[in-house]
Amino acid sequence: MKDRTRIRSLSEHIGEDILLCGWVRRRRSSGSKLHFLHVDDGSGAVQVVVKKGGVAEDQLDEARHLPLESTVVIRGTVKEAPRQAGGIEVAATELNILAAATGEFPIGKKEHGVGFLMDNRHLWLRSRRPQAALRIRAEVIRACRSYLDGRGFTNVDAPIFNSAAAEGTATLFPVDYFGETIYLSQTGQLHMEAAAQALGDVYCFGPTFRAEKSKTRRHLTEFWMLEPEMAFADLDESMDLMEGMIGHVIESVTEHCVPDLEALERDIDALRAFAPPFPRISYTDALKTLEGTDAAIEWGEDFGAPQEDAVSAAYAKPVLVHRFPSAIKAFYMKADPEDPRVALGCDMIAPEGYGEIIGGGERSSDLAFLEQKIEEHGLPKEAYEWYLDLRRYGANPTAGFGMGLERVVAWMGDLGHVREAAPFARTMARTFP
Amino acid sequence: MKDRTRIRSLSEHIGEDILLCGWVRRRRSSGSKLHFLHVDDGSGAVQVVVKKGGVAEDQLDEARHLPLESTVVIRGTVKEAPRQAGGIEVAATELNILAAATGEFPIGKKEHGVGFLMDNRHLWLRSRRPQAALRIRAEVIRACRSYLDGRGFTNVDAPIFNSAAAEGTATLFPVDYFGETIYLSQTGQLHMEAAAQALGDVYCFGPTFRAEKSKTRRHLTEFWMLEPEMAFADLDESMDLMEGMIGHVIESVTEHCVPDLEALERDIDALRAFAPPFPRISYTDALKTLEGTDAAIEWGEDFGAPQEDAVSAAYAKPVLVHRFPSAIKAFYMKADPEDPRVALGCDMIAPEGYGEIIGGGERSSDLAFLEQKIEEHGLPKEAYEWYLDLRRYGANPTAGFGMGLERVVAWMGDLGHVREAAPFARTMARTFP
Repeated sequence: MKDRTRIRSLSEHIGEDILLCGWVRRRRSSGSKLHFLHVDDGSGAVQVVVKKGGVAEDQLDEARHLPLESTVVIRGTVKEAPRQAGGIEVAATELNILAAATGEFPIGKKEHGVGFLMDNRHLWLRSRRPQAALRIRAEVIRACRSYLDGRGFTNVDAPIFNSAAAEGTATLFPVDYFGETIYLSQTGQLHMEAAAQALGDVYCFGPTFRAEKSKTRRHLTEFWMLEPEMAFADLDESMDLMEGMIGHVIESVTEHCVPDLEALERDIDALRAFAPPFPRISYTDALKTLEGTDAAIEWGEDFGAPQEDAVSAAYAKPVLVHRFPSAIKAFYMKADPEDPRVALGCDMIAPEGYGEIIGGGERSSDLAFLEQKIEEHGLPKEAYEWYLDLRRYGANPTAGFGMGLERVVAWMGDLGHVREAAPFARTMARTFP
Repeated sequence: MKDRTRIRSLSEHIGEDILLCGWVRRRRSSGSKLHFLHVDDGSGAVQVVVKKGGVAEDQLDEARHLPLESTVVIRGTVKEAPRQAGGIEVAATELNILAAATGEFPIGKKEHGVGFLMDNRHLWLRSRRPQAALRIRAEVIRACRSYLDGRGFTNVDAPIFNSAAAEGTATLFPVDYFGETIYLSQTGQLHMEAAAQALGDVYCFGPTFRAEKSKTRRHLTEFWMLEPEMAFADLDESMDLMEGMIGHVIESVTEHCVPDLEALERDIDALRAFAPPFPRISYTDALKTLEGTDAAIEWGEDFGAPQEDAVSAAYAKPVLVHRFPSAIKAFYMKADPEDPRVALGCDMIAPEGYGEIIGGGERSSDLAFLEQKIEEHGLPKEAYEWYLDLRRYGANPTAGFGMGLERVVAWMGDLGHVREAAPFARTMARTFP
């Protein structure tokens, strides 16, 4: 309906007669002659006042009995209403029902279990909380892309289908590809290294897949990952980029998503206070802060949620933990020349218990080192020949990282669980709707 | 290397001493005392002049014997050089070899077969043509997103994993999902309709997968698709959006990618001339233009490449062909109230033989009609119950479309084949590197 006005822009039309469309999400009546419809068109919501004398008698009656989530087409006048959200309301002059809901909307005011809500995710999306979470997600995506595009990065999409399994097949999903078994990508990084040799600063941003049997609030089987890669760059530049980009995300979300953050009851001041700079500590130093706590681990052990939470709790900021033991990191990480037991990698741990949101670092440019690591990790060398070519022809330090989108969104909105940070979350037990 | 200058910004440093890094992609010597290195760092390329007296003797000798694609770190002075591309060159004062290539670079000046180039795609990317094609691809992505973001659309990512097969399983890739068979999505549209009921105007933009046994220059098994969806919108609004967005893409590419279009020898004036408005003709009228030609078909038959090419050749613009027979279109398309044999759908056919780049239209909001169509198409109704819920609770006209990214990029760059429009194209016979 071309002549309709989106609700988000109603405030530019005060005093004017407009046409609006939307869903009646809530309703309140004051007797039989005055009805308040809360109408949402996805761009925003507004209170529509339907009263005797304002609309025809039959329309007044319809307003009274309309099931929630019915669609309506309303003509009316935009009025200032200081007590309403947005400071406006619409006085209806004509109410037409486009489609009355065929029964009671499954999602009501009462508390529903998560299973029920996820089964009805296609309807649950219309509630304020998912609406807000998805708008924040879109803003995080926009902010990351604009940060990188503005710095001369080229978006290069990594392939999803791969006949060569990059880091062992244990957590890869197999696909029947015209009778052959291939795998879904769980990282675009190796391909981004090839692209960086062609275009300098590049990034991919798309879905990745991990067949991990994890049922935690931080894991999905399908999630989006942003992976920038820079030629001629080292660990420090990789950390600078992580920090700058997350700083930009915080700034963008707290600037453009205030109503959404409020709908989620997210502490906005707390979020703003997470602005850079972020502390940078080595794995070895991080272990010292864990000594004597329940989260204490031996040197060489990997971080789990307890270690991430404990390190994070020690600072009021996102924390960059660098130089983890090489043995627990990917084969392609460059060893620290000053201590070859550790890799020139870095994880960013989010505050407030949201865990690792970024992992990255500097890649080895040493052909012999990589060949040895591939052997040590028991990986099929054949599958990596093309990757090794990048060291045979024009090796250089490259560095980058992978950012898990849903974890960042969950943290931004303080959502508690990554499943609320995806439009249609996929977990071990869920691939529907 | 933090203190290096990216080659694309060298022209801001004329007369200054700078540090640059890059690959030596070409080289020319004038005797033993003067060498011209064509150095590319991915952001751009520049001629570096290495001459006796400018650098140390051993460096002069290295410059003479350096294998192509070796990486170098160069100090030098930026000078005006009107005869060089970009109007500048660098007079080297110091040449350090970071990594000499270990042998002759596999991709040389001679003609290579497509198979060889695709086998070495990780190295081929460094050539001018793939560099240019990928920069154009990134610009198309940026332009589409900015067009939609600027109009209040919310980016909502559709899920890739689906236990319910949306349009029959014939062209779906099966995935072994923890022992169960599920499928990779070939469209996000149904999920976007659910999202449109929550957020009004939405879009998804990600990889989709089709197990079609097509070996044409227009088909990939993995390709990116942009799918906007608008609540309360009809076929005309969907056509307006297609037209406006493609117009914006043409404008952005011809504004920001001139050097890349030139590298591809793409006729830029021809591209500019494809600006909107685009002709809109019905399928029935299109058939009339085909009468008496080799591409003539009976009413009811679908378009193939010959029909697309013939219709496209009749206009000097992208063409919107609407109202195809319902029987050859997806079940959810709304029937035309004025002629129920045809659906309120529309395809956009690109000029210059690039075929269908967009398909879309208005979706039926009629529950009974959809139930009947699902039965007629022999689809499992159970799998569509959630989709039918969207008509049970707040039905409304929604409209949108799907744009195949690689086809648009192939057209923009006049690449001839979609495989050059993807960083690492996947076809029936190729999932590597």
